Amino acid sequence: MCEASAYLIQDGKETLVLESVDIVEPLDEGGFMLRNIFGDQAIINARIHKMELVNHRILFSETETDITDMVNRSST
Amino acid sequence: MCEASAYLIQDGKETLVLESVDIVEPLDEGGFMLRNIFGDQAIINARIHKMELVNHRILFSETETDITDMVNRSST
Repeated sequence: MCEASAYLIQDGKETLVLESVDIVEPLDEGGFMLRNIFGDQAIINARIHKMELVNHRILFSETETDITDMVNRSST
Repeated sequence: MCEASAYLIQDGKETLVLESVDIVEPLDEGGFMLRNIFGDQAIINARIHKMELVNHRILFSETETDITDMVNRSST
């Protein structure tokens, strides 16, 4: 299948945010909603740094926000 | 392979911008650079509307810019 893993880049280091991501939708207030093929969701307050679809990777990088506000996961 | 096709939504209609997209990178001046697995590139001055990776679709929607400025294709 062709989902991707979403990573957050901080200080040059990649941290996995959510695997098997299918849906990516920008939020009006900034950041993105990510939903994977299992129905898990993550809200990430960051911007897209680069997408490498053949390598199944979506890289996000920080906006000005504090990291603790950046990722909010939930399962359906 | 897991590339995607990039579409631009205008007036509810989807127009294909580039097929087999592998790399998506935001541009400092706004918009995105798209590169496919054949090395073709497109610069699109639009924002991400939604991504459906399992369905191999990246949907862009207009920013305020005139459509003729929105897509600039080149082959390497």
